[in-house]
Amino acid sequence: MENGYFEEKLKNLKQTTRLSDADVEYLKRNSVRRNYYNGQNIHGNDGSCTGIIFINSGIVRVYLMSDEGKEVTLYRLYEGDYCMLSASCVLQSISFEVHVDAETDCDVFIIRPAAFGELMKNNVYLENFALNVAVNRFSEVMWAMQQVLFMNLDRRLAAFLYDEYARTGNTVIRMTHEQIARNISSAREVVTRMLRYLAKEGVIEVERGGVTILDKAKLQALI
Amino acid sequence: MENGYFEEKLKNLKQTTRLSDADVEYLKRNSVRRNYYNGQNIHGNDGSCTGIIFINSGIVRVYLMSDEGKEVTLYRLYEGDYCMLSASCVLQSISFEVHVDAETDCDVFIIRPAAFGELMKNNVYLENFALNVAVNRFSEVMWAMQQVLFMNLDRRLAAFLYDEYARTGNTVIRMTHEQIARNISSAREVVTRMLRYLAKEGVIEVERGGVTILDKAKLQALI
Repeated sequence: MENGYFEEKLKNLKQTTRLSDADVEYLKRNSVRRNYYNGQNIHGNDGSCTGIIFINSGIVRVYLMSDEGKEVTLYRLYEGDYCMLSASCVLQSISFEVHVDAETDCDVFIIRPAAFGELMKNNVYLENFALNVAVNRFSEVMWAMQQVLFMNLDRRLAAFLYDEYARTGNTVIRMTHEQIARNISSAREVVTRMLRYLAKEGVIEVERGGVTILDKAKLQALI
Repeated sequence: MENGYFEEKLKNLKQTTRLSDADVEYLKRNSVRRNYYNGQNIHGNDGSCTGIIFINSGIVRVYLMSDEGKEVTLYRLYEGDYCMLSASCVLQSISFEVHVDAETDCDVFIIRPAAFGELMKNNVYLENFALNVAVNRFSEVMWAMQQVLFMNLDRRLAAFLYDEYARTGNTVIRMTHEQIARNISSAREVVTRMLRYLAKEGVIEVERGGVTILDKAKLQALI
């Protein structure tokens, strides 16, 4: 496997945050490459400050977990994204903890928080970068929160299916009901019932391990 | 009325963000002092970018509103706090809109967004200040979100009453059921029922326009 994508991103970071060549080398030396399998926990289960996660390939899910183990998905990160919330020890203004799981097989680089924090102390541009990544996610979380709090389940489910189609360009969505439920912060039983309802309406077809969108216009009208 | 508190805060800001004397004067010239009465809308109802709100005295409530008018309180700001989310046009990474209401009679200074943005363009320290304020609120919102999503209503209500007592040092909480409901993102009927239940348990006493905490230990045990 090549480091190419990560190195390219570090070059961008160097330009926007005025890092020196030595700084970039320091970040590289303090990064470890890790592979995670679909469903594996990356951050949050042991309470430690993992570091900044760079997604080289794959999808990770960032979520909140209650004391009783109930989960709410905040957002997902894709190839080329940085996860800052897994390095809350680096940013003092972040005072809560999230969990991060691999949602597909993942190839990531983890930048050690102490090394990043060290550079940040003397580089206000790097702090600026980190804060902007966090605030961007903030905006996504607010969106997710509005979904959960305001939208009815049928609209949430329709919005999720339509977004998946828009993202992949594929009308076939290969996800279990359990996975869909987790993504819209609902329960599997409730999602199964609602999928069956949408199937009866001719909007989708439900198959083993997936959903096929039959009528995009009807689906969109539900949102 | 004196400008004293605002000026003192600007001095702090000057130090942390390396503003020049001319910059501080520029911010002052581009700030307007406003008074709002209890319940008045400060930001969000007309869709414009109000600016950075500095709370000189009083309490403001920041909340989300759905298309149907349903509200969810995100957090409240007190004397000495800055509200950045009412100036989302200044921070590109904020891509959602909140509403801000006066929750008591309020005396505030509003810094024009264009002026703040102008200074921020050439001052990364000022941008970091603004981002840090936003991320701090992010942390509070995550807390509120966990309350709404994970805690049962009795715990949420008990936590709210206890927090009010802790904040004011007064066991008498002068709020209508409607106001309490809004603060814990519930409905008035539900809150009234739960207050009656807590009263039967001897935890509180419910009076016209308020609640008195009778048993602090019992209340805390519910949280």
